[in-house]
Amino acid sequence: MSHTRLVAVDWGTSSLRGALLEPDGRIVEEQSHPRGILTVKHGGFTDVFETLFADWMRPQGTRCLISGMAGSKQGWVEAPYCACPAGLAEVRSRIMEIEPGRISIVPGLCDTHDGVPDVMRGEEVQILGAMVLTNLRDGLFVLPGTHNKWARVKNGMVTGFRTFMTGEFYALLSQHSILSRTLDTSAGLDEAAFLQGVTQSDNGQGLLHNAFGARTLSLFDRMPARELTSYLSGILIGEELRTQSLHAAGEVVLIGTPALTQRYRLALQASGVRARTLGSEATWAGLHALHAPNPTQRKQ
Amino acid sequence: MSHTRLVAVDWGTSSLRGALLEPDGRIVEEQSHPRGILTVKHGGFTDVFETLFADWMRPQGTRCLISGMAGSKQGWVEAPYCACPAGLAEVRSRIMEIEPGRISIVPGLCDTHDGVPDVMRGEEVQILGAMVLTNLRDGLFVLPGTHNKWARVKNGMVTGFRTFMTGEFYALLSQHSILSRTLDTSAGLDEAAFLQGVTQSDNGQGLLHNAFGARTLSLFDRMPARELTSYLSGILIGEELRTQSLHAAGEVVLIGTPALTQRYRLALQASGVRARTLGSEATWAGLHALHAPNPTQRKQ
Repeated sequence: MSHTRLVAVDWGTSSLRGALLEPDGRIVEEQSHPRGILTVKHGGFTDVFETLFADWMRPQGTRCLISGMAGSKQGWVEAPYCACPAGLAEVRSRIMEIEPGRISIVPGLCDTHDGVPDVMRGEEVQILGAMVLTNLRDGLFVLPGTHNKWARVKNGMVTGFRTFMTGEFYALLSQHSILSRTLDTSAGLDEAAFLQGVTQSDNGQGLLHNAFGARTLSLFDRMPARELTSYLSGILIGEELRTQSLHAAGEVVLIGTPALTQRYRLALQASGVRARTLGSEATWAGLHALHAPNPTQRKQ
Repeated sequence: MSHTRLVAVDWGTSSLRGALLEPDGRIVEEQSHPRGILTVKHGGFTDVFETLFADWMRPQGTRCLISGMAGSKQGWVEAPYCACPAGLAEVRSRIMEIEPGRISIVPGLCDTHDGVPDVMRGEEVQILGAMVLTNLRDGLFVLPGTHNKWARVKNGMVTGFRTFMTGEFYALLSQHSILSRTLDTSAGLDEAAFLQGVTQSDNGQGLLHNAFGARTLSLFDRMPARELTSYLSGILIGEELRTQSLHAAGEVVLIGTPALTQRYRLALQASGVRARTLGSEATWAGLHALHAPNPTQRKQ
Protein backbone atom coordinates (compact mmCIF):
# COMPACT_ATOMS: atom_id res chain seq x y z
CA MET A 1 0.00 0.00 0.00
CA SER A 2 1.16 3.49 -0.90
CA HIS A 3 2.09 5.71 2.04
CA THR A 4 1.05 9.02 0.50
CA ARG A 5 -2.36 10.50 0.01
CA LEU A 6 -4.06 10.31 -3.41
CA VAL A 7 -5.85 13.20 -5.08
CA ALA A 8 -8.62 11.47 -7.05
CA VAL A 9 -10.27 13.54 -9.78
CA ASP A 10 -13.26 12.78 -12.01
CA TRP A 11 -13.02 15.44 -14.74
CA GLY A 12 -16.05 15.23 -16.97
CA THR A 13 -17.57 17.21 -19.83
CA SER A 14 -19.56 19.64 -17.72
CA SER A 15 -18.29 19.21 -14.18
CA LEU A 16 -15.27 18.23 -12.14
CA ARG A 17 -15.21 16.38 -8.82
CA GLY A 18 -12.23 15.69 -6.61
CA ALA A 19 -11.51 13.73 -3.44
CA LEU A 20 -8.47 13.62 -1.18
CA LEU A 21 -7.91 10.01 -0.11
CA GLU A 22 -5.88 8.53 2.72
CA PRO A 23 -3.39 5.79 1.75
CA ASP A 24 -6.00 3.22 2.83
CA GLY A 25 -8.67 4.80 0.59
CA ARG A 26 -10.68 6.67 3.22
CA ILE A 27 -12.07 10.00 2.00
CA VAL A 28 -10.57 13.03 3.80
CA GLU A 29 -12.34 15.75 1.84
CA GLU A 30 -14.35 16.24 -1.37
CA GLN A 31 -14.94 19.17 -3.71
CA SER A 32 -16.87 19.72 -6.93
CA HIS A 33 -16.88 22.55 -9.46
CA PRO A 34 -18.71 23.48 -12.67
CA ARG A 35 -15.33 23.33 -14.45
CA GLY A 36 -15.95 20.52 -16.96
CA ILE A 37 -13.54 20.27 -19.90
CA LEU A 38 -15.88 22.34 -22.07
CA THR A 39 -15.15 25.34 -19.81
CA VAL A 40 -11.36 24.99 -20.10
CA LYS A 41 -9.47 26.78 -22.87
CA HIS A 42 -6.95 24.87 -24.98
CA GLY A 43 -3.73 24.79 -22.93
CA GLY A 44 -5.53 25.91 -19.77
CA PHE A 45 -5.80 22.60 -17.94
CA THR A 46 -2.64 22.99 -15.83
CA ASP A 47 -3.79 26.37 -14.50
CA VAL A 48 -7.29 25.14 -13.64
CA PHE A 49 -5.82 22.08 -11.93
CA GLU A 50 -3.31 24.02 -9.85
CA THR A 51 -5.92 26.59 -8.83
CA LEU A 52 -8.26 23.91 -7.52
CA PHE A 53 -5.86 21.30 -6.15
CA ALA A 54 -2.58 23.04 -5.18
CA ASP A 55 -3.39 22.73 -1.45
CA TRP A 56 -4.08 19.01 -1.64
CA MET A 57 -1.00 18.39 -3.82
CA ARG A 58 1.40 20.29 -1.49
CA PRO A 59 2.75 17.39 0.65
CA GLN A 60 5.86 15.85 -0.96
CA GLY A 61 5.05 12.72 -2.98
CA THR A 62 1.30 13.31 -3.31
CA ARG A 63 -0.02 11.81 -6.52
CA CYS A 64 -3.10 12.68 -8.56
CA LEU A 65 -5.05 10.28 -10.74
CA ILE A 66 -7.66 11.72 -13.11
CA SER A 67 -10.47 9.88 -14.91
CA GLY A 68 -13.14 11.05 -17.37
CA MET A 69 -13.24 13.26 -20.44
CA ALA A 70 -10.03 15.05 -19.40
CA GLY A 71 -8.39 12.08 -21.15
CA SER A 72 -10.22 12.68 -24.45
CA LYS A 73 -9.03 14.47 -27.59
CA GLN A 74 -10.65 17.66 -26.26
CA GLY A 75 -9.13 17.18 -22.78
CA TRP A 76 -5.80 17.72 -21.06
CA VAL A 77 -3.83 14.80 -22.52
CA GLU A 78 -5.37 12.16 -24.77
CA ALA A 79 -5.22 8.72 -23.17
CA PRO A 80 -6.02 6.14 -25.89
CA TYR A 81 -8.92 3.78 -25.13
CA CYS A 82 -8.17 0.38 -23.61
CA ALA A 83 -9.99 -2.38 -25.54
CA CYS A 84 -12.35 -4.85 -23.83
CA PRO A 85 -11.98 -7.29 -22.21
CA ALA A 86 -10.19 -5.18 -19.61
CA GLY A 87 -9.81 -5.32 -15.84
CA LEU A 88 -7.78 -3.45 -13.24
CA ALA A 89 -4.40 -4.58 -14.58
CA GLU A 90 -5.18 -3.68 -18.21
CA VAL A 91 -6.49 -0.21 -17.36
CA ARG A 92 -3.61 0.45 -14.97
CA SER A 93 -1.03 -0.51 -17.60
CA ARG A 94 -2.48 2.14 -19.94
CA ILE A 95 -2.43 5.05 -17.48
CA MET A 96 -0.74 8.09 -19.09
CA GLU A 97 1.57 10.46 -17.22
CA ILE A 98 0.76 14.16 -17.44
CA GLU A 99 3.49 15.21 -14.99
CA PRO A 100 5.53 12.04 -14.44
CA GLY A 101 5.28 10.80 -10.86
CA ARG A 102 2.77 13.53 -9.95
CA ILE A 103 -0.32 13.68 -12.21
CA SER A 104 -1.63 10.81 -14.35
CA ILE A 105 -4.72 10.14 -16.41
CA VAL A 106 -6.77 6.94 -16.74
CA PRO A 107 -7.74 5.70 -20.25
CA GLY A 108 -11.34 4.99 -21.20
CA LEU A 109 -12.57 1.67 -22.57
CA CYS A 110 -13.69 0.79 -26.09
CA ASP A 111 -15.67 -2.12 -27.45
CA THR A 112 -17.05 -2.99 -30.91
CA HIS A 113 -20.33 -4.61 -31.98
CA ASP A 114 -20.95 -5.46 -35.66
CA GLY A 115 -18.29 -2.99 -36.75
CA VAL A 116 -19.71 -0.11 -34.69
CA PRO A 117 -17.41 1.07 -31.88
CA ASP A 118 -18.57 2.00 -28.38
CA VAL A 119 -16.72 4.05 -25.80
CA MET A 120 -16.68 5.11 -22.15
CA ARG A 121 -14.46 7.52 -20.21
CA GLY A 122 -14.74 7.63 -16.44
CA GLU A 123 -17.33 4.88 -16.05
CA GLU A 124 -14.58 2.20 -16.22
CA VAL A 125 -13.17 3.62 -12.98
CA GLN A 126 -16.60 3.47 -11.34
CA ILE A 127 -17.00 -0.16 -12.43
CA LEU A 128 -13.56 -1.09 -11.07
CA GLY A 129 -14.41 0.70 -7.82
CA ALA A 130 -17.81 -1.00 -7.60
CA MET A 131 -16.10 -4.38 -7.93
CA VAL A 132 -13.93 -3.52 -4.91
CA LEU A 133 -16.82 -2.16 -2.85
CA THR A 134 -19.21 -5.07 -3.57
CA ASN A 135 -16.63 -7.85 -3.84
CA LEU A 136 -18.45 -8.84 -7.04
CA ARG A 137 -16.35 -10.10 -9.94
CA ASP A 138 -19.31 -11.06 -12.18
CA GLY A 139 -22.50 -9.25 -13.09
CA LEU A 140 -24.17 -6.46 -15.01
CA PHE A 141 -22.99 -2.98 -14.06
CA VAL A 142 -25.34 -0.17 -15.06
CA LEU A 143 -24.30 3.50 -15.01
CA PRO A 144 -27.24 5.84 -15.70
CA GLY A 145 -26.43 9.33 -16.94
CA THR A 146 -26.58 11.40 -20.12
CA HIS A 147 -25.11 8.43 -21.98
CA ASN A 148 -25.84 5.34 -19.92
CA LYS A 149 -23.45 2.40 -19.92
CA TRP A 150 -24.43 -1.25 -19.47
CA ALA A 151 -21.27 -3.27 -18.84
CA ARG A 152 -20.91 -7.02 -18.48
CA VAL A 153 -18.29 -8.14 -15.98
CA LYS A 154 -16.84 -11.65 -15.87
CA ASN A 155 -14.10 -12.76 -13.50
CA GLY A 156 -13.19 -9.16 -12.69
CA MET A 157 -12.92 -8.11 -16.36
CA VAL A 158 -15.25 -5.80 -18.30
CA THR A 159 -15.96 -8.15 -21.21
CA GLY A 160 -18.11 -5.71 -23.17
CA PHE A 161 -20.53 -2.80 -22.86
CA ARG A 162 -23.09 -0.70 -24.68
CA THR A 163 -24.05 2.96 -24.47
CA PHE A 164 -27.66 4.15 -24.39
CA MET A 165 -28.45 7.83 -24.99
CA THR A 166 -31.39 7.67 -22.58
CA GLY A 167 -30.51 10.75 -20.52
CA GLU A 168 -29.87 12.86 -23.59
CA PHE A 169 -33.09 11.70 -25.29
CA TYR A 170 -35.03 12.63 -22.14
CA ALA A 171 -33.48 16.12 -22.18
CA LEU A 172 -34.12 16.56 -25.92
CA LEU A 173 -37.74 15.44 -25.68
CA SER A 174 -38.60 17.39 -22.55
CA GLN A 175 -36.82 20.59 -23.63
CA HIS A 176 -36.96 20.79 -27.43
CA SER A 177 -39.75 18.53 -28.74
CA ILE A 178 -43.50 19.05 -29.09
CA LEU A 179 -43.82 17.17 -25.77
CA SER A 180 -42.09 20.06 -23.98
CA ARG A 181 -45.26 22.14 -24.36
CA THR A 182 -47.30 19.91 -22.07
CA LEU A 183 -44.72 18.41 -19.68
CA ASP A 184 -44.16 19.89 -16.24
CA THR A 185 -40.42 19.26 -15.90
CA SER A 186 -40.35 20.74 -12.40
CA ALA A 187 -42.46 17.85 -11.10
CA GLY A 188 -40.80 15.13 -9.03
CA LEU A 189 -41.00 11.41 -9.70
CA ASP A 190 -44.53 9.95 -9.79
CA GLU A 191 -43.91 6.24 -9.32
CA ALA A 192 -47.26 5.07 -10.74
CA ALA A 193 -46.94 7.15 -13.93
CA PHE A 194 -43.30 6.08 -14.27
CA LEU A 195 -44.19 2.39 -14.03
CA GLN A 196 -47.10 2.92 -16.45
CA GLY A 197 -44.51 4.20 -18.94
CA VAL A 198 -42.22 1.23 -18.26
CA THR A 199 -45.12 -1.16 -18.97
CA GLN A 200 -46.19 0.75 -22.08
CA SER A 201 -42.65 0.60 -23.50
CA ASP A 202 -43.01 -3.17 -23.75
CA ASN A 203 -45.85 -3.07 -26.34
CA GLY A 204 -43.57 -3.79 -29.30
CA GLN A 205 -44.27 -0.41 -30.93
CA GLY A 206 -40.94 1.20 -30.07
CA LEU A 207 -39.87 4.54 -28.67
CA LEU A 208 -40.75 6.58 -31.77
CA HIS A 209 -44.40 5.66 -31.26
CA ASN A 210 -44.60 5.41 -27.49
CA ALA A 211 -43.08 8.84 -26.86
CA PHE A 212 -46.03 10.34 -28.77
CA GLY A 213 -48.33 8.92 -26.07
CA ALA A 214 -46.99 11.58 -23.71
CA ARG A 215 -48.50 14.10 -26.13
CA THR A 216 -51.89 12.46 -26.68
CA LEU A 217 -52.47 11.54 -23.02
CA SER A 218 -52.18 15.27 -22.36
CA LEU A 219 -54.31 16.26 -25.37
CA PHE A 220 -57.18 14.09 -24.10
CA ASP A 221 -56.63 15.07 -20.44
CA ARG A 222 -55.89 11.46 -19.54
CA MET A 223 -52.80 12.34 -17.48
CA PRO A 224 -51.90 15.57 -15.64
CA ALA A 225 -48.79 17.50 -16.74
CA ARG A 226 -47.01 16.76 -13.43
CA GLU A 227 -47.21 12.98 -14.14
CA LEU A 228 -46.27 13.13 -17.82
CA THR A 229 -42.53 13.65 -17.20
CA SER A 230 -42.47 10.49 -15.09
CA TYR A 231 -44.44 8.63 -17.78
CA LEU A 232 -41.95 9.72 -20.45
CA SER A 233 -39.04 8.75 -18.22
CA GLY A 234 -40.63 5.31 -17.80
CA ILE A 235 -41.08 4.96 -21.59
CA LEU A 236 -37.37 5.70 -22.10
CA ILE A 237 -35.94 3.59 -19.28
CA GLY A 238 -38.33 0.74 -20.12
CA GLU A 239 -37.14 0.87 -23.75
CA GLU A 240 -33.56 0.56 -22.53
CA LEU A 241 -34.34 -2.39 -20.24
CA ARG A 242 -36.16 -4.24 -23.05
CA THR A 243 -32.83 -4.73 -24.85
CA GLN A 244 -31.24 -6.52 -21.91
CA SER A 245 -31.28 -10.20 -20.95
CA LEU A 246 -31.82 -9.24 -17.33
CA HIS A 247 -32.52 -12.63 -15.87
CA ALA A 248 -29.40 -14.15 -17.43
CA ALA A 249 -27.25 -11.27 -16.23
CA GLY A 250 -26.53 -12.36 -12.67
CA GLU A 251 -26.18 -9.60 -10.11
CA VAL A 252 -27.10 -6.10 -11.26
CA VAL A 253 -25.19 -3.13 -9.81
CA LEU A 254 -26.45 0.43 -10.33
CA ILE A 255 -23.89 3.23 -10.05
CA GLY A 256 -24.96 6.87 -10.17
CA THR A 257 -26.86 9.67 -8.50
CA PRO A 258 -29.76 8.61 -6.24
CA ALA A 259 -32.32 10.44 -8.47
CA LEU A 260 -31.37 8.22 -11.42
CA THR A 261 -30.57 4.93 -9.73
CA GLN A 262 -33.95 5.11 -7.96
CA ARG A 263 -35.73 5.04 -11.34
CA TYR A 264 -33.69 2.13 -12.64
CA ARG A 265 -34.24 0.21 -9.39
CA LEU A 266 -38.01 0.69 -9.75
CA ALA A 267 -38.02 -0.37 -13.40
CA LEU A 268 -35.84 -3.41 -12.65
CA GLN A 269 -38.06 -4.38 -9.70
CA ALA A 270 -41.04 -4.33 -12.09
CA SER A 271 -39.16 -6.98 -14.11
CA GLY A 272 -38.44 -8.98 -10.96
CA VAL A 273 -34.77 -8.00 -10.86
CA ARG A 274 -33.11 -6.70 -7.71
CA ALA A 275 -30.15 -4.37 -7.90
CA ARG A 276 -27.46 -3.05 -5.57
CA THR A 277 -26.85 0.70 -5.67
CA LEU A 278 -23.66 2.74 -5.36
CA GLY A 279 -22.94 6.46 -5.70
CA SER A 280 -19.84 8.61 -6.13
CA GLU A 281 -17.87 6.45 -3.70
CA ALA A 282 -17.38 4.02 -6.59
CA THR A 283 -15.23 6.58 -8.43
CA TRP A 284 -12.95 7.13 -5.46
CA ALA A 285 -12.66 3.40 -4.79
CA GLY A 286 -11.78 2.82 -8.46
CA LEU A 287 -9.09 5.50 -8.60
CA HIS A 288 -7.69 4.24 -5.30
CA ALA A 289 -7.60 0.66 -6.61
CA LEU A 290 -5.76 1.80 -9.76
CA HIS A 291 -3.28 3.75 -7.61
CA ALA A 292 -2.64 1.12 -4.96
CA PRO A 293 -0.21 -1.61 -6.04
CA ASN A 294 -2.41 -4.26 -4.45
CA PRO A 295 -5.98 -3.09 -4.08
CA THR A 296 -7.22 -6.40 -2.66
CA GLN A 297 -5.40 -5.51 0.57
CA ARG A 298 -7.39 -2.29 0.87
CA LYS A 299 -9.02 -1.89 4.29
CA GLN A 300 -12.58 -0.64 4.55
CA MET B 1 -71.05 16.06 -59.15
CA SER B 2 -70.90 19.67 -57.96
CA HIS B 3 -70.91 22.33 -60.68
CA THR B 4 -68.77 24.89 -58.85
CA ARG B 5 -65.03 24.96 -58.29
CA LEU B 6 -63.59 23.85 -54.95
CA VAL B 7 -60.91 25.74 -53.03
CA ALA B 8 -59.01 22.94 -51.29
CA VAL B 9 -56.76 24.01 -48.40
CA ASP B 10 -54.31 22.01 -46.29
CA TRP B 11 -53.60 24.31 -43.32
CA GLY B 12 -50.90 22.81 -41.17
CA THR B 13 -48.82 23.82 -38.17
CA SER B 14 -46.02 25.54 -40.06
CA SER B 15 -47.31 25.93 -43.61
CA LEU B 16 -50.43 26.31 -45.69
CA ARG B 17 -51.10 24.94 -49.16
CA GLY B 18 -54.11 25.59 -51.37
CA ALA B 19 -55.43 24.33 -54.71
CA LEU B 20 -58.23 25.54 -56.92
CA LEU B 21 -60.05 22.49 -58.30
CA GLU B 22 -62.43 22.12 -61.22
CA PRO B 23 -65.74 20.40 -60.48
CA ASP B 24 -64.23 17.17 -61.84
CA GLY B 25 -61.22 17.46 -59.53
CA ARG B 26 -58.62 18.71 -61.98
CA ILE B 27 -56.14 21.17 -60.46
CA VAL B 28 -56.41 24.68 -61.93
CA GLU B 29 -53.80 26.38 -59.76
CA GLU B 30 -51.83 25.80 -56.57
CA GLN B 31 -50.26 28.09 -53.96
CA SER B 32 -48.33 27.60 -50.74
CA HIS B 33 -47.32 29.98 -47.96
CA PRO B 34 -45.35 29.87 -44.70
CA ARG B 35 -48.58 30.81 -42.88
CA GLY B 36 -49.08 27.74 -40.68
CA ILE B 37 -51.47 28.11 -37.74
CA LEU B 38 -48.56 28.96 -35.42
CA THR B 39 -48.12 32.23 -37.35
CA VAL B 40 -51.78 33.24 -37.03
CA LYS B 41 -52.94 35.32 -34.07
CA HIS B 42 -56.03 34.25 -32.13
CA GLY B 43 -59.03 35.55 -34.10
CA GLY B 44 -56.88 36.25 -37.17
CA PHE B 45 -57.80 33.24 -39.33
CA THR B 46 -60.56 34.97 -41.35
CA ASP B 47 -58.24 37.80 -42.35
CA VAL B 48 -55.41 35.46 -43.40
CA PHE B 49 -57.85 33.31 -45.36
CA GLU B 50 -59.45 36.24 -47.20
CA THR B 51 -56.06 37.76 -48.02
CA LEU B 52 -54.83 34.54 -49.60
CA PHE B 53 -57.99 33.13 -51.19
CA ALA B 54 -60.40 36.04 -51.93
CA ASP B 55 -59.68 35.79 -55.68
CA TRP B 56 -60.39 32.08 -55.86
CA MET B 57 -63.53 32.42 -53.70
CA ARG B 58 -65.04 35.27 -55.76
CA PRO B 59 -67.28 33.28 -58.16
CA GLN B 60 -70.77 32.82 -56.67
CA GLY B 61 -71.21 29.44 -54.98
CA THR B 62 -67.50 28.61 -54.65
CA ARG B 63 -66.88 26.44 -51.62
CA CYS B 64 -63.74 25.93 -49.57
CA LEU B 65 -62.82 22.78 -47.66
CA ILE B 66 -59.91 22.95 -45.20
CA SER B 67 -58.00 20.06 -43.63
CA GLY B 68 -55.14 19.95 -41.13
CA MET B 69 -54.29 21.68 -37.87
CA ALA B 70 -56.63 24.60 -38.66
CA GLY B 71 -59.27 22.27 -37.18
CA SER B 72 -57.42 21.86 -33.87
CA LYS B 73 -57.94 23.65 -30.57
CA GLN B 74 -55.22 26.15 -31.60
CA GLY B 75 -56.75 26.57 -35.08
CA TRP B 76 -59.64 28.45 -36.70
CA VAL B 77 -62.54 26.31 -35.50
CA GLU B 78 -62.13 23.10 -33.53
CA ALA B 79 -63.49 20.11 -35.44
CA PRO B 80 -63.70 17.18 -33.00
CA TYR B 81 -61.85 14.02 -34.02
CA CYS B 82 -63.75 11.27 -35.83
CA ALA B 83 -63.08 7.88 -34.21
CA CYS B 84 -61.74 4.89 -36.17
CA PRO B 85 -62.92 2.91 -38.02
CA ALA B 86 -63.78 5.75 -40.38
CA GLY B 87 -64.13 6.11 -44.14
CA LEU B 88 -65.28 8.81 -46.51
CA ALA B 89 -68.88 8.87 -45.23
CA GLU B 90 -67.89 9.08 -41.55
CA VAL B 91 -65.40 11.89 -42.10
CA ARG B 92 -67.81 13.78 -44.36
CA SER B 93 -70.59 13.59 -41.79
CA ARG B 94 -68.33 15.30 -39.22
CA ILE B 95 -67.29 18.25 -41.41
CA MET B 96 -67.78 21.52 -39.50
CA GLU B 97 -69.04 24.73 -41.09
CA ILE B 98 -66.96 27.85 -40.54
CA GLU B 99 -69.07 30.04 -42.82
CA PRO B 100 -72.09 27.90 -43.64
CA GLY B 101 -72.27 27.01 -47.33
CA ARG B 102 -68.91 28.69 -48.01
CA ILE B 103 -66.02 27.52 -45.80
CA SER B 104 -65.88 24.18 -43.96
CA ILE B 105 -63.29 22.23 -42.03
CA VAL B 106 -62.55 18.50 -42.04
CA PRO B 107 -62.16 16.68 -38.68
CA GLY B 108 -59.08 14.62 -37.87
CA LEU B 109 -59.15 10.97 -36.81
CA CYS B 110 -58.50 9.43 -33.42
CA ASP B 111 -57.71 5.90 -32.37
CA THR B 112 -56.80 4.27 -29.04
CA HIS B 113 -54.32 1.50 -28.15
CA ASP B 114 -54.11 0.16 -24.59
CA GLY B 115 -55.74 3.31 -23.24
CA VAL B 116 -53.35 5.66 -25.04
CA PRO B 117 -55.02 7.84 -27.69
CA ASP B 118 -53.53 8.59 -31.10
CA VAL B 119 -54.50 11.39 -33.47
CA MET B 120 -54.08 12.72 -37.00
CA ARG B 121 -55.24 15.93 -38.66
CA GLY B 122 -54.86 16.29 -42.41
CA GLU B 123 -53.44 12.84 -43.10
CA GLU B 124 -56.97 11.33 -43.12
CA VAL B 125 -57.72 13.45 -46.21
CA GLN B 126 -54.54 12.24 -47.91
CA ILE B 127 -55.49 8.62 -47.17
CA LEU B 128 -59.01 9.11 -48.54
CA GLY B 129 -57.52 10.76 -51.63
CA ALA B 130 -54.96 7.98 -52.06
CA MET B 131 -57.77 5.42 -52.02
CA VAL B 132 -59.44 7.30 -54.91
CA LEU B 133 -56.21 7.69 -56.88
CA THR B 134 -55.04 4.09 -56.46
CA ASN B 135 -58.47 2.39 -56.42
CA LEU B 136 -57.17 0.53 -53.35
CA ARG B 137 -59.63 -0.15 -50.54
CA ASP B 138 -57.26 -2.30 -48.46
CA GLY B 139 -53.63 -1.84 -47.46
CA LEU B 140 -51.13 -0.05 -45.30
CA PHE B 141 -50.96 3.70 -45.89
CA VAL B 142 -47.77 5.37 -44.68
CA LEU B 143 -47.41 9.16 -44.37
CA PRO B 144 -43.86 10.22 -43.51
CA GLY B 145 -43.36 13.64 -41.95
CA THR B 146 -42.55 15.22 -38.59
CA HIS B 147 -45.03 12.83 -36.98
CA ASN B 148 -45.42 9.88 -39.35
CA LYS B 149 -48.68 7.99 -39.57
CA TRP B 150 -49.08 4.30 -40.37
CA ALA B 151 -52.75 3.59 -41.14
CA ARG B 152 -54.42 0.28 -41.84
CA VAL B 153 -57.25 0.43 -44.39
CA LYS B 154 -59.85 -2.32 -44.79
CA ASN B 155 -62.76 -2.15 -47.21
CA GLY B 156 -62.31 1.60 -47.66
CA MET B 157 -62.21 2.34 -43.94
CA VAL B 158 -59.26 3.48 -41.82
CA THR B 159 -59.50 0.79 -39.15
CA GLY B 160 -56.64 2.10 -37.01
CA PHE B 161 -53.35 3.94 -37.09
CA ARG B 162 -50.23 4.80 -35.12
CA THR B 163 -48.02 7.88 -35.00
CA PHE B 164 -44.20 7.70 -35.02
CA MET B 165 -42.16 10.79 -34.11
CA THR B 166 -39.44 9.81 -36.57
CA GLY B 167 -39.12 13.18 -38.33
CA GLU B 168 -39.03 15.09 -35.06
CA PHE B 169 -36.45 12.70 -33.52
CA TYR B 170 -34.27 13.17 -36.60
CA ALA B 171 -34.46 16.95 -36.23
CA LEU B 172 -33.77 16.79 -32.46
CA LEU B 173 -30.78 14.49 -32.87
CA SER B 174 -29.23 16.28 -35.82
CA GLN B 175 -29.77 19.80 -34.42
CA HIS B 176 -29.63 19.58 -30.62
CA SER B 177 -27.85 16.36 -29.57
CA ILE B 178 -24.17 15.48 -29.24
CA LEU B 179 -24.49 13.93 -32.73
CA SER B 180 -25.04 17.39 -34.22
CA ARG B 181 -21.34 18.16 -33.69
CA THR B 182 -20.20 15.57 -36.23
CA LEU B 183 -23.11 15.30 -38.70
CA ASP B 184 -23.04 17.19 -41.98
CA THR B 185 -26.75 17.97 -42.30
CA SER B 186 -26.23 19.69 -45.65
CA ALA B 187 -25.27 16.36 -47.25
CA GLY B 188 -27.75 14.61 -49.53
CA LEU B 189 -28.91 11.02 -49.20
CA ASP B 190 -26.14 8.40 -49.32
CA GLU B 191 -28.03 5.20 -50.10
CA ALA B 192 -25.35 2.79 -48.87
CA ALA B 193 -24.96 4.54 -45.49
CA PHE B 194 -28.75 4.83 -45.18
CA LEU B 195 -29.23 1.10 -45.77
CA GLN B 196 -26.37 0.33 -43.37
CA GLY B 197 -28.38 2.23 -40.72
CA VAL B 198 -31.56 0.35 -41.62
CA THR B 199 -29.72 -2.97 -41.20
CA GLN B 200 -28.08 -1.86 -37.95
CA SER B 201 -31.47 -0.86 -36.48
CA ASP B 202 -32.51 -4.50 -36.57
CA ASN B 203 -29.86 -5.66 -34.04
CA GLY B 204 -32.29 -5.78 -31.12
CA GLN B 205 -30.45 -3.04 -29.21
CA GLY B 206 -32.97 -0.28 -29.84
CA LEU B 207 -32.76 3.32 -30.93
CA LEU B 208 -31.25 4.63 -27.66
CA HIS B 209 -28.15 2.51 -28.31
CA ASN B 210 -28.00 2.56 -32.11
CA ALA B 211 -28.18 6.35 -32.38
CA PHE B 212 -24.92 6.52 -30.40
CA GLY B 213 -23.24 4.61 -33.25
CA ALA B 214 -23.49 7.79 -35.34
CA ARG B 215 -21.22 9.36 -32.73
CA THR B 216 -18.65 6.57 -32.39
CA LEU B 217 -18.38 5.85 -36.13
CA SER B 218 -17.30 9.48 -36.45
CA LEU B 219 -15.02 9.37 -33.39
CA PHE B 220 -13.09 6.45 -34.91
CA ASP B 221 -13.19 7.88 -38.46
CA ARG B 222 -15.16 4.87 -39.67
CA MET B 223 -17.70 6.98 -41.58
CA PRO B 224 -17.37 10.48 -43.11
CA ALA B 225 -19.60 13.28 -41.79
CA ARG B 226 -21.47 13.52 -45.11
CA GLU B 227 -22.65 9.88 -44.75
CA LEU B 228 -23.52 10.00 -41.05
CA THR B 229 -26.81 11.88 -41.56
CA SER B 230 -27.96 9.15 -43.96
CA TYR B 231 -26.84 6.48 -41.48
CA LEU B 232 -28.82 8.15 -38.67
CA SER B 233 -31.85 8.48 -40.94
CA GLY B 234 -31.57 4.74 -41.69
CA ILE B 235 -31.34 3.91 -37.96
CA LEU B 236 -34.56 5.89 -37.32
CA ILE B 237 -36.61 4.69 -40.30
CA GLY B 238 -35.40 1.12 -39.77
CA GLU B 239 -36.52 1.33 -36.12
CA GLU B 240 -39.98 2.43 -37.31
CA LEU B 241 -40.25 -0.39 -39.87
CA ARG B 242 -39.26 -2.99 -37.27
CA THR B 243 -42.58 -2.44 -35.46
CA GLN B 244 -44.67 -3.26 -38.53
CA SER B 245 -45.94 -6.60 -39.83
CA LEU B 246 -45.02 -5.57 -43.34
CA HIS B 247 -45.56 -8.84 -45.13
CA ALA B 248 -49.03 -9.28 -43.67
CA ALA B 249 -50.01 -5.73 -44.56
CA GLY B 250 -51.00 -6.16 -48.20
CA GLU B 251 -50.28 -3.23 -50.50
CA VAL B 252 -48.20 -0.41 -49.04
CA VAL B 253 -48.89 3.16 -50.18
CA LEU B 254 -46.44 5.96 -49.35
CA ILE B 255 -47.81 9.50 -49.33
CA GLY B 256 -45.51 12.49 -48.89
CA THR B 257 -42.71 14.57 -50.33
CA PRO B 258 -40.35 12.75 -52.72
CA ALA B 259 -37.35 13.33 -50.38
CA LEU B 260 -39.08 11.36 -47.63
CA THR B 261 -40.98 8.71 -49.61
CA GLN B 262 -37.72 7.84 -51.40
CA ARG B 263 -36.15 6.83 -48.07
CA TYR B 264 -39.11 4.73 -47.01
CA ARG B 265 -39.23 3.06 -50.41
CA LEU B 266 -35.54 2.13 -50.09
CA ALA B 267 -35.98 0.79 -46.56
CA LEU B 268 -39.09 -1.18 -47.55
CA GLN B 269 -37.31 -2.62 -50.60
CA ALA B 270 -34.56 -3.85 -48.27
CA SER B 271 -37.31 -5.81 -46.48
CA GLY B 272 -38.63 -7.13 -49.78
CA VAL B 273 -41.70 -4.90 -49.72
CA ARG B 274 -42.72 -2.80 -52.72
CA ALA B 275 -44.66 0.40 -52.28
CA ARG B 276 -46.65 2.82 -54.42
CA THR B 277 -45.88 6.51 -53.95
CA LEU B 278 -48.12 9.56 -54.03
CA GLY B 279 -47.46 13.24 -53.35
CA SER B 280 -49.57 16.33 -52.65
CA GLU B 281 -52.15 15.25 -55.25
CA ALA B 282 -53.52 12.90 -52.59
CA THR B 283 -54.62 15.88 -50.47
CA TRP B 284 -56.52 17.50 -53.34
CA ALA B 285 -58.12 14.20 -54.35
CA GLY B 286 -59.21 13.65 -50.76
CA LEU B 287 -60.75 17.09 -50.31
CA HIS B 288 -62.45 16.73 -53.69
CA ALA B 289 -63.85 13.33 -52.74
CA LEU B 290 -65.20 14.74 -49.46
CA HIS B 291 -66.77 17.65 -51.35
CA ALA B 292 -68.25 15.71 -54.27
CA PRO B 293 -71.52 13.96 -53.43
CA ASN B 294 -70.40 10.87 -55.35
CA PRO B 295 -66.62 10.72 -55.61
CA THR B 296 -66.60 7.39 -57.44
CA GLN B 297 -67.85 9.21 -60.53
CA ARG B 298 -64.82 11.50 -60.53
CA LYS B 299 -63.06 11.65 -63.90
CA GLN B 300 -59.28 11.63 -64.17
